[in-house]
Amino acid sequence: MNAIREEAGAVRLPVLRHKAGAASDAVDWVAEEAPVALVFNGISHAVMMATPCDLVELALGFALSEGIVARRSEIFDVEAETVCGGAEVRLEIAQPAFLAMKERRRSLAGRTGCGVCGIESLALLDLAPEAIAPPSQPIAADGQAIARAAAGLPPHQHLMRLTGCAHAAAWCDREGNVLAVFEDVGRHNALDKLIGWLAMEEACVGDGFVFLSSRASYELVRKAARLNIPMLATISAPTSLAVDIARRAGVTLASFCRQNGFVEYTAQAQA
Amino acid sequence: MNAIREEAGAVRLPVLRHKAGAASDAVDWVAEEAPVALVFNGISHAVMMATPCDLVELALGFALSEGIVARRSEIFDVEAETVCGGAEVRLEIAQPAFLAMKERRRSLAGRTGCGVCGIESLALLDLAPEAIAPPSQPIAADGQAIARAAAGLPPHQHLMRLTGCAHAAAWCDREGNVLAVFEDVGRHNALDKLIGWLAMEEACVGDGFVFLSSRASYELVRKAARLNIPMLATISAPTSLAVDIARRAGVTLASFCRQNGFVEYTAQAQA
Repeated sequence: MNAIREEAGAVRLPVLRHKAGAASDAVDWVAEEAPVALVFNGISHAVMMATPCDLVELALGFALSEGIVARRSEIFDVEAETVCGGAEVRLEIAQPAFLAMKERRRSLAGRTGCGVCGIESLALLDLAPEAIAPPSQPIAADGQAIARAAAGLPPHQHLMRLTGCAHAAAWCDREGNVLAVFEDVGRHNALDKLIGWLAMEEACVGDGFVFLSSRASYELVRKAARLNIPMLATISAPTSLAVDIARRAGVTLASFCRQNGFVEYTAQAQA
Repeated sequence: MNAIREEAGAVRLPVLRHKAGAASDAVDWVAEEAPVALVFNGISHAVMMATPCDLVELALGFALSEGIVARRSEIFDVEAETVCGGAEVRLEIAQPAFLAMKERRRSLAGRTGCGVCGIESLALLDLAPEAIAPPSQPIAADGQAIARAAAGLPPHQHLMRLTGCAHAAAWCDREGNVLAVFEDVGRHNALDKLIGWLAMEEACVGDGFVFLSSRASYELVRKAARLNIPMLATISAPTSLAVDIARRAGVTLASFCRQNGFVEYTAQAQA
């Protein structure tokens, strides 16, 4: 493609801009979407469409949030490399985790659909997320912290500003100060990058919350729950299954988070 | 879950609404997201997270847009049923298509990742979409038609208005008149529902274009290309891979479609 890569995660493309009936040549920034293969101990396990930056974080986060490894220490090495038409991330993981992954692959053999990562029948779909860390203290959704996060996130959404096509996942402390932000064309990838970063930093996930620029869907809540992240706050709406999983997993879910309010989906009714 | 289903695709949930520091009990409409299993000739092939309405259209569209069948006439029967915690759609398809699907399942055996439907290594990922219908006449992106579609879609976005959490896929004639709209929490599901409807109606896909409320990502362009839909117009931004596939497949891609303008990503530079 006739693309110039000058910014991480974005390319420039020639376009035709139509405005009020007139067309003019222009150059537009477009968010990169590319196949990223995750290879565990030499076995290619998954290909995801993702924005090819922060790939080490992406792979670490995916391995943890999808339950391939139970903890960071089971990952011995991670190497990302650009290959023809995409990227490949190679992970060396502990043998028991690798054997368990191969066993799951065998029992799930077959081609699968979107959205539920490799599950091919309802009977195999276990919606209850198992946590991989000791339970966090519950965290209450706090209006001031959410307002601070909602105000603090946009200046960090570099790729979104450039392309209009990226989700952001941020880590905030309990006061809502934004400590880290990752962007991707896929919201689940943005969250995995953040989870990978939290693991690399050995951050205490009980000390803050995840703030997402996107909607809250099933897989996001599930990933957060598996890491025992106590609270997920999203700018857009949740789905019914996201609310259900959050309630069952004890994750506080706040959506429609704005500077002047939010909606809490996991709260007990008042009085 | 404590949910009352009163509208197709939406449930009502008790929530706590926070506004300017005060919290009050409220009831909120939330878009349904549920696992939907697609069963071909008795074999469960995929589970998707989708909004469980228009399931016959969803299954037909998926079978066509994912190349499981090459034409509508290879699908003999479709039956959707609500099952515990989700839905199941059973399709009876022609034996050669079913054998080819089983063969692909064998060669792709293994657990897979999000976003690229069952592909587990880069070597298996063929990004060039093969069309399943005779090539359509190219359609030029027309500002008036796009403006008409952009104005015409919102009144049909019932689920979006109710929940703030649904993508819409619309079929428009060449003048931009909106002829059909399907909604889903997943944009690829919304498009598959529309593609299924087009197949049921035996519509001539060369006579109009698809208008999407979402961004344009890889899989949407690929699905449209496979059906030989000549043009895809989206309200939000495209990804780099969506542009690339559209150019290779000869699909006209217009994004940032508004009533007063749009950006064409597949046009030749002027003069």
